[in-house]
Amino acid sequence: MNIVDIIAKKRDNRALTRLEIKYFIKSLVSHKIEDYHASTLLMAIYLNGMSHDEIVNLTKEMMKSGEIIDLSDIPGVKVDKHSTGGVGDKTSMVLAPLVASFGVKVAKVSGRGLGHTGGTLDKLESIPGMSINLTNAKFKELVRRNGIAIMGQTKELDPADKTLYALRDVTATVGSLPLITSSIMSKKLASGSDTILLDVKVGSGAFMKTLKDARELSNLLVSVGKACNKDTRAIITDMQEPLGYAVGNILEVKEAIDTLNNKGPKDFTELCLTCAAIMLTQAKVTDNLDKAKEMAEANLKNGKAFYKFKQWIASQGGDTYYLDHPDKFKKAKYVYDIKCKHVGYIKEIEALTIGEAAMHLGAGRLTIKDKIDPTAGIVLNKKVGDHVKFNDLLCKVYTNKENVNDILKTINKAFKILPVKVKTPKVIIDYIK
Amino acid sequence: MNIVDIIAKKRDNRALTRLEIKYFIKSLVSHKIEDYHASTLLMAIYLNGMSHDEIVNLTKEMMKSGEIIDLSDIPGVKVDKHSTGGVGDKTSMVLAPLVASFGVKVAKVSGRGLGHTGGTLDKLESIPGMSINLTNAKFKELVRRNGIAIMGQTKELDPADKTLYALRDVTATVGSLPLITSSIMSKKLASGSDTILLDVKVGSGAFMKTLKDARELSNLLVSVGKACNKDTRAIITDMQEPLGYAVGNILEVKEAIDTLNNKGPKDFTELCLTCAAIMLTQAKVTDNLDKAKEMAEANLKNGKAFYKFKQWIASQGGDTYYLDHPDKFKKAKYVYDIKCKHVGYIKEIEALTIGEAAMHLGAGRLTIKDKIDPTAGIVLNKKVGDHVKFNDLLCKVYTNKENVNDILKTINKAFKILPVKVKTPKVIIDYIK
Repeated sequence: MNIVDIIAKKRDNRALTRLEIKYFIKSLVSHKIEDYHASTLLMAIYLNGMSHDEIVNLTKEMMKSGEIIDLSDIPGVKVDKHSTGGVGDKTSMVLAPLVASFGVKVAKVSGRGLGHTGGTLDKLESIPGMSINLTNAKFKELVRRNGIAIMGQTKELDPADKTLYALRDVTATVGSLPLITSSIMSKKLASGSDTILLDVKVGSGAFMKTLKDARELSNLLVSVGKACNKDTRAIITDMQEPLGYAVGNILEVKEAIDTLNNKGPKDFTELCLTCAAIMLTQAKVTDNLDKAKEMAEANLKNGKAFYKFKQWIASQGGDTYYLDHPDKFKKAKYVYDIKCKHVGYIKEIEALTIGEAAMHLGAGRLTIKDKIDPTAGIVLNKKVGDHVKFNDLLCKVYTNKENVNDILKTINKAFKILPVKVKTPKVIIDYIK
Repeated sequence: MNIVDIIAKKRDNRALTRLEIKYFIKSLVSHKIEDYHASTLLMAIYLNGMSHDEIVNLTKEMMKSGEIIDLSDIPGVKVDKHSTGGVGDKTSMVLAPLVASFGVKVAKVSGRGLGHTGGTLDKLESIPGMSINLTNAKFKELVRRNGIAIMGQTKELDPADKTLYALRDVTATVGSLPLITSSIMSKKLASGSDTILLDVKVGSGAFMKTLKDARELSNLLVSVGKACNKDTRAIITDMQEPLGYAVGNILEVKEAIDTLNNKGPKDFTELCLTCAAIMLTQAKVTDNLDKAKEMAEANLKNGKAFYKFKQWIASQGGDTYYLDHPDKFKKAKYVYDIKCKHVGYIKEIEALTIGEAAMHLGAGRLTIKDKIDPTAGIVLNKKVGDHVKFNDLLCKVYTNKENVNDILKTINKAFKILPVKVKTPKVIIDYIK
């Protein structure tokens, strides 16, 4: 077997066998093939696609390329959730303790943010003391003891994905369904949980721009997960406007705290409750989705979710004083008000524009080496469907940077205002199981 | 401008601009992009193709990537000829002096052989003393003085092609018409001649396996040449069976000598005369192709072509004693006769099989680093269409290697014999101008 023949086969639009895919991944990870071999094959996959069997095999071989976390000795169902990334997506911070407050084991391996989308790890790290660099042993101990832990992906987990993703990023081969699917699912499978819930975002601020693409990806993720014998489900959720009000690390932590105290934004709370309900059924706490949602809502109201949140943050070194006194979090030096210049209804708040603006304010990374400013970001005061008058506050902008006038103008333009009434968008678009 | 956007554009099947192609080639040659960028773009070009304008621009930018030989200060039309490579293709050795014997300037930059196809340089170097490592100044001096010189491609000529070809070879992106065309034409254009004749071989022993592919390539080569303001023409010629009788370096030199003395194989002589006739019309010696062919034939008969051959070989250091006494050339240690085991007519002599067998006997290179044995090879005794009886000699096999039984068996199997009469194939299939 040799890599040139494998490239030629995919080039000619023929399906690769399990052994050929195994050879490719093994050679990649052991540096027996060159980057140009891998990138050329990635382009052939991008253009010619892959059969379902090929995607399943690629996912399995990538998963096996490194360490697989074994949670089987922890009793109970271990649940996991993954979002394809959006603007203001602080879901995991609420969802994990909410689900764990029912005694369900939440064992989650998370990533960092890049570009206009934020990452759960960066948000968590904006809580003083909080550490996401856990050993596997510590991670498992926390899941066993408290039923909840979130850690950063180690070097040893799915090294094939790291190499492939780095190559895809610089060779215009990111947007390929087989490659996206295998990248997401191989990491999730290697993380060791029993069930997976995928939150596939769709809209201007998401990776999937159209509902058709989001549906295709969701179906593929679920069917590949099932082919790997995992209870895998997906929801498609709106990412036309930012999720909730807050975009930026500390700002989102504060919104998560509000939400855990049942004072969160309507759209974000709805998303958290829906995800929690699905995960509770995956964990077999109940088989009734409506009942599960009511149960989840109750735990936001009765303080159990917030209690679990504090226990969790404390268990990973975070200072819970800030959770009880969110006003004590560090603040940005400059705060700007963006005022409305029209009268009417908000038709759109471009998530991509808001996400990129937040990144430029310091809240995100343009390249993997950039440092994040945890205080920077944007807090919306209005959402799509809201009525606005001249001079109404549209949002507040937080930054430590000077000379952000161009960014402020861009943020203002992200709000599209119409004179006619606009319907409030639904956050949950579809559920695939 | 950046390479990732250029890859994405070709990935999405959009045409690259002249400036984008220029950026790619300049970045490639100056090592400002990585091999994985180039190989990924090559696969996108392989799968999505290129427009005629893109191919012309790619050809021009590759040509400009290095030194361009300027022959404009040498009076008269400078002609060049290129073959896409075949088995037993010793055409240049006969054609160059034949055309030069009319005072036409033949300035040819040649390549080496790889795989089952031989290279003119290797054949010439099997003549003791012969050097193909000329400086550009020496090359031009010889063309000016004797009207003929053939030299090896220098490092400085078309470096983009060297890099791209090396990458294509290891990433299954060789067989792409835009890439083949730009590779051939950029080198020919950089070599500085005024006219180009392309001999596109078709058949099992050639790079183009079908007439359809050969026609497509020929049309493309000619139209790209014309778009670059060169008198460019092409002939499509048969490569189902080896050309002439001899395959292997010294063996082919001997056959070239025979041919220059008007005692060559019928098919090979026909090819040389046709090519010479076209080149004589390109050089405006006459505008009548039939007349040009008669003139060429005359110079094989009257000794002028052979005289020019000797003058040429001597001018590049070759010992002409061997040209007058070909039996003095070094001989292989072992000679085997392959005998016919059937009665009938030869339907096929698989050129690919014969070419590969000759390579394994020592006549060719499997990798670029292999050394060639100039004495090794095969001399056919029969051609397609010939009648054969049991025990007739099919060919003689020359080698210095031990244990070649498997090779001998393979050679025997390359001869397909039918009980019914078979037509002698035409060597010239088409002429495109």
